[in-house]
Amino acid sequence: MPSRTADRLPLSLSARVHDLHPSPIREILEVVGRPGMISFAGGLPAAETFPDFGLAAPDSALQYGPSEGDPALRERIALELAALGLDATPDRVLVLSGSQQGIDLVGKLFVDAGTPVAVESPTYLAALQVFRFFGARFLPFAPETVSADFFRDHRPALAYAIPTFQNPTGRCYTVAERAALAEACMASGVPMFEDDPYRDLVFDACDRRPVCAGIEGSPWIYQGSFSKSLAPGLRLGFLAASPELFTPLVRLKQAADLHSNRLSQWLVLQQLEAAGRPARLARLADFYRAKRDAFDAALRRHFGALADWQTPAGGLFFWLQLKRPVDTRLLLPAAIQRGVAFMPGEAFYASDAALGTLRLNFSHAAEDEMDTGLAKLAELVSAAP
Amino acid sequence: MPSRTADRLPLSLSARVHDLHPSPIREILEVVGRPGMISFAGGLPAAETFPDFGLAAPDSALQYGPSEGDPALRERIALELAALGLDATPDRVLVLSGSQQGIDLVGKLFVDAGTPVAVESPTYLAALQVFRFFGARFLPFAPETVSADFFRDHRPALAYAIPTFQNPTGRCYTVAERAALAEACMASGVPMFEDDPYRDLVFDACDRRPVCAGIEGSPWIYQGSFSKSLAPGLRLGFLAASPELFTPLVRLKQAADLHSNRLSQWLVLQQLEAAGRPARLARLADFYRAKRDAFDAALRRHFGALADWQTPAGGLFFWLQLKRPVDTRLLLPAAIQRGVAFMPGEAFYASDAALGTLRLNFSHAAEDEMDTGLAKLAELVSAAP
Repeated sequence: MPSRTADRLPLSLSARVHDLHPSPIREILEVVGRPGMISFAGGLPAAETFPDFGLAAPDSALQYGPSEGDPALRERIALELAALGLDATPDRVLVLSGSQQGIDLVGKLFVDAGTPVAVESPTYLAALQVFRFFGARFLPFAPETVSADFFRDHRPALAYAIPTFQNPTGRCYTVAERAALAEACMASGVPMFEDDPYRDLVFDACDRRPVCAGIEGSPWIYQGSFSKSLAPGLRLGFLAASPELFTPLVRLKQAADLHSNRLSQWLVLQQLEAAGRPARLARLADFYRAKRDAFDAALRRHFGALADWQTPAGGLFFWLQLKRPVDTRLLLPAAIQRGVAFMPGEAFYASDAALGTLRLNFSHAAEDEMDTGLAKLAELVSAAP
Repeated sequence: MPSRTADRLPLSLSARVHDLHPSPIREILEVVGRPGMISFAGGLPAAETFPDFGLAAPDSALQYGPSEGDPALRERIALELAALGLDATPDRVLVLSGSQQGIDLVGKLFVDAGTPVAVESPTYLAALQVFRFFGARFLPFAPETVSADFFRDHRPALAYAIPTFQNPTGRCYTVAERAALAEACMASGVPMFEDDPYRDLVFDACDRRPVCAGIEGSPWIYQGSFSKSLAPGLRLGFLAASPELFTPLVRLKQAADLHSNRLSQWLVLQQLEAAGRPARLARLADFYRAKRDAFDAALRRHFGALADWQTPAGGLFFWLQLKRPVDTRLLLPAAIQRGVAFMPGEAFYASDAALGTLRLNFSHAAEDEMDTGLAKLAELVSAAP
């Protein structure tokens, strides 16, 4: 049996990462916290000058903090990730200003002009935008057919995927698909970047084990978000990564915004530690499940003859494939004029957009609006040339 | 008299900006807020699911928001910028997740491998890091000698400066230096990027009119921070820019983190609108002035024979030039061992670091610590070979 390592691609980081040195400030600030240290090093404002914001949070939540995130929050996140099977110790957890930031950092870390990036297609639009901005060439892949040879042949610098309740398709990888993707990454050495913002919005039993939990001895980055399970306005997410990727990601984070909002970090920690959290997550799932079911029923009424779809087991979206290949981008202006907004599916494709796809969010509209809105949309689709 | 425009360099943006398209999601979300619109477009969680964080802030502070920032905060910031003489309407104000983010966005906007960037030297270390990361070659300039011809000869893609209470030097440009830099930018067409985080920490009368307030018909970006005048843990800053630069900066902001923390935006707005704000800023200045004076006195006691310095009229730092060219980086380990941390000046230079410089922060240490710490440092400097 050939050694796996022999067939592996080398880690390929962006050219700009070669100029990513540790910050002297950062290194000095690390020692400044020692008891008895007199510091003339930082540029910390005096805590006495902070205004009274009327918050229950401690004053430390108002001061500068570590780029990696507040230690207590990192520990708590690591605990939850370990429960998912990830090899993520607290020192390899990075708190993010929302998981969009993780995509920016990973783009900076890997992507130069012309760098191949393996992506599901369709996939999260704003990830395509970030990778494209840094110069990516996209290599579309599907979990059903991905393999180490496919990766070896096309040599992507990383593989980006949303295996659980994908955006836009709502799809949840099977156990076999998760194992196959992990194996393809491990055997080829291609770093896996798993984006997992919808995990907690689960309505039906399905496997949600992170793909990265199946990766050993090969580079990986796993990221999550508190936007869907707590509140997006707090702009807080996190990533964990294998050791060789963690340090450069922290340096990139520091250059991007020094560190994430500490008030949000404190608020989120309170929520993660709250005794009522499991019950709250269960209520959250119940709430969205009811929404999904109502939307599904309205879809059957209005789109039964017009489109195909899979009822999503979690997440926030239905993905419709129209029976006729109508370019839904052309329907959008008329829809908006009639008071209904939707996302044409074409924008989510890395290349070669399939026509006749729509992404429909079911979490925002009230139930009676679902019916009215879908009726109007169906009318437009039927009338399309 | 030759036309100014004829001698101007063309605007030179990074190669990657050519792939910076407007986001379809963004465009659709703009119409979604219209009354009566039924939206299946976004991925907004339902506000009913947000936990009770025990905050006085409205629920909107917990939801996704506009990339540019909350309208009320943008209006308030624009008002303050107009009072400084800047041509900044609310629609050209971008709320940032701290002003470090502004440097990242501007780096992305302008800097490719080999792009010349004009910088003061020494200057803010983390700005050098960001520009260097995107591939900048540095063109050091000094406000005393800068000119349009200098810029025309060296063709920097932008000029970055901290004219008011500079980091690390504490220097405040004179009226004439401000006018000369604005004129050099205008006449050469080089975009000015003015970083102004220390403006409110003013202890002595000095001109603080933004350089960008003197620029007309030429590209500029001005940024400020709430970290020093309110609280850094909230990670909130802002920029304003001339029209041709504003739109790409918003798109970059969206790709970086969608939008800034809305709770922070709400908290900061309350503070900006508070009746007691002018009095608070006056107290803030008094507090730091007393610190500065105590530090100055301690410096005279311990460093009078060892170093030269200008007493800073504002900001957070003293900049020491030792009378002997000691490499202060070599002193740092021994200083830390004795319980005193400082920033060696060498790290702040874009190139050709002058030896024998130190940046000393005076805002953090207590007055008795200043004396103890500076005594120890002086001892090390005296003993250095």
